[in-house]
Amino acid sequence: MKDLLGRDNAITVEDALMLLNKQKLGITGIELIPIENAFGRVLAQDVASPENLPGFNRSTMDGYAVNSADTFGASDTMPVYLQIKGQVLMGQRPEIKLRRGETCQIPTGGMLPEGADAIVMFENTSRLDNEMVEVMKTVSPGENVIMFDEDVKKGEVILKAGHRLRPQDIGALAGLGILEIEAYVKPVVAIISTGDEVVPADKPISIGEVRDINSYNLAGMISACQAVPLKKGIIKDDLDVLREAVKQALNESDMLLITGGSSVGVADYTARVINELGSPGVLFHGVAMKPGKPVIGGIVDGKPVFGLPGHPAAITVSFETFIEPLLIRLSGEIQKPALPSRRIVRALFSRNLSSAIGREEHLRVYVERRNGALWAIPVLGKSGLIRTLVQADGIVIVPMKKSGIYEGEEVEVRLFNT
Amino acid sequence: MKDLLGRDNAITVEDALMLLNKQKLGITGIELIPIENAFGRVLAQDVASPENLPGFNRSTMDGYAVNSADTFGASDTMPVYLQIKGQVLMGQRPEIKLRRGETCQIPTGGMLPEGADAIVMFENTSRLDNEMVEVMKTVSPGENVIMFDEDVKKGEVILKAGHRLRPQDIGALAGLGILEIEAYVKPVVAIISTGDEVVPADKPISIGEVRDINSYNLAGMISACQAVPLKKGIIKDDLDVLREAVKQALNESDMLLITGGSSVGVADYTARVINELGSPGVLFHGVAMKPGKPVIGGIVDGKPVFGLPGHPAAITVSFETFIEPLLIRLSGEIQKPALPSRRIVRALFSRNLSSAIGREEHLRVYVERRNGALWAIPVLGKSGLIRTLVQADGIVIVPMKKSGIYEGEEVEVRLFNT
Repeated sequence: MKDLLGRDNAITVEDALMLLNKQKLGITGIELIPIENAFGRVLAQDVASPENLPGFNRSTMDGYAVNSADTFGASDTMPVYLQIKGQVLMGQRPEIKLRRGETCQIPTGGMLPEGADAIVMFENTSRLDNEMVEVMKTVSPGENVIMFDEDVKKGEVILKAGHRLRPQDIGALAGLGILEIEAYVKPVVAIISTGDEVVPADKPISIGEVRDINSYNLAGMISACQAVPLKKGIIKDDLDVLREAVKQALNESDMLLITGGSSVGVADYTARVINELGSPGVLFHGVAMKPGKPVIGGIVDGKPVFGLPGHPAAITVSFETFIEPLLIRLSGEIQKPALPSRRIVRALFSRNLSSAIGREEHLRVYVERRNGALWAIPVLGKSGLIRTLVQADGIVIVPMKKSGIYEGEEVEVRLFNT
Repeated sequence: MKDLLGRDNAITVEDALMLLNKQKLGITGIELIPIENAFGRVLAQDVASPENLPGFNRSTMDGYAVNSADTFGASDTMPVYLQIKGQVLMGQRPEIKLRRGETCQIPTGGMLPEGADAIVMFENTSRLDNEMVEVMKTVSPGENVIMFDEDVKKGEVILKAGHRLRPQDIGALAGLGILEIEAYVKPVVAIISTGDEVVPADKPISIGEVRDINSYNLAGMISACQAVPLKKGIIKDDLDVLREAVKQALNESDMLLITGGSSVGVADYTARVINELGSPGVLFHGVAMKPGKPVIGGIVDGKPVFGLPGHPAAITVSFETFIEPLLIRLSGEIQKPALPSRRIVRALFSRNLSSAIGREEHLRVYVERRNGALWAIPVLGKSGLIRTLVQADGIVIVPMKKSGIYEGEEVEVRLFNT
């Protein structure tokens, strides 16, 4: 069904997401990268350990290596006495071999000598002379020791394909001597700005013109998703020019965002070009949300293409709602559904606010502590204002079937990326 | 007071943080950077707007520009009729001047002609012919318009020093034609690995040796804090060598982390060097926390220096507890205390777990959804194991005065950075 302007009726956010989720996406390539540069990258294959870790029984404390059976029953009041057979040096295989009743000094990280299966911490010993030490604590087999292959066994998968590497994961790779990994190539997202009134930020402007804000906002959000923004400049409102620009941009990218396509002419061009250049073309044109209603979503031969409304707030909300989830898919990351992808904070809403039933409203809010409680205060103002986004800390979503939020109601604030 | 090993008694995490907070830190410099590269950077000075935004009354809708008074009382059943005087073109100052009873077509983003103070959306109009349009809705003055300087006034401070720039902030700067900003130089954090048993990850290892895991883990965590890691290699356990290495590293950095200083000898060297090289020197040596107890914290002439225990989990916990807050200070960022700096998720604890009173315990956990609820499952195992960190999604803190967590108790999981 079309409305007065020939646009399809707005569909719900849920339906729009479902349409997008069903689409097959082209995947980016795979590249070999050194682990030093792999923080935040997504593994393209499972990583199995090439060796056992540790490769030897290792002390986790400074103390005395013992045969644990020799310490059974030892206590402050009833110490046992062991004979000292020298000491283990760091990084060296000890030549000492402990017999029952014998011990040797060992540093944290030192290799256990043959005959030892536990460490008594210095704190629980008292050295009598160069030959004898008093042990005042019972230790169990394996106590204060990481045993051979206890951490990782050879051949074991330690990190799975689809995992985004965290600092400790890189540490683990280094620990296993794995210096390069196969990662998915970061998705490239092209940005085309449209609008006869839009001028580059570094050019002087005349009355009636505005600077290109959106490509900067989008580039930042794309980077925050660990993808690569590719600015393709500003083009005039012309069907043929747009078609050429879109064709070229799609050749160089995995996704394309066209901004400023909210005024009727440009929106129509955008939809037409998406339909012309590949299938399935436009999936939806208009979504029951505020801001962001005029958003156009489509797929051209496996590459998502969006026509985004020109207002800064609408750009942010459309990006978070539709583009971020697609970028995660394109990146190859398999997220744990139990974990939030953003910082979220619960707060009390500061005032009564009505919201039209039948559309999902994304309110910009800032968060403040007042009398010990956190409050979310809506930043009111038109979605065309930059100010509302700059002042806000995040977004509160009023679901489609809710007619508003009461003062004092608890809400979830999804914080913007920093 | 000293313990058996001559170490000072462990102080509480709270006291250690207080000691660190009281210290004056050297600040990093200031640099001019283009806004394209400013995402995530911290402003070193307030940014005031050089102009009014918008510089003209701008339509936020496609429709008809009107004098709102002409529409008063208009409705579906009682439309008003206005005479069409051409149309406003994008990016151009309109030459039309509306008189009462007149209107003109205007696109989203178009400049209002003289005599107009509101826009009626197309949806609320019906064009009769080339000369007449029927308006079926009353609009108020300013409706669907962003008025001159409504967004930002010339001279107004829009972003404050200490603010970490988000995507929309960069957009706002672009919108005001501000192409460069003064940012604090990112803090440089040097890393020295110590230990006779530690070998570089790219070198073959022998029995008794371990690869340098910690510098990789630390480099990732430093990068995640938007600081710059500077690896200074692995040095042997020798006082003079350490002193020279520390001196040199401090010349090139704003903070220094020495890892592997948990075995008694190295820890003593580390503390001694920190005290020798500048004041106030060592602030604490040993903190009542697990893991991470042997951590040494000090300041050498305004630069924080830490001796970190060698276990991977202790590295992560010490970093999150002590180093991250200092890095935020060094970066110049002024954080909103109401906002969490990390992703946090609330979950139910999966089992009874006891914890010694008198120390703060940092449990590694993973998070899973079971029967509709989120559960935090502790990853048990020695802090020397890499596995426990790789398997965990985040940390649950058991406060010092708590003797454990009950099964089913709600806990807060602080997720690791990705």
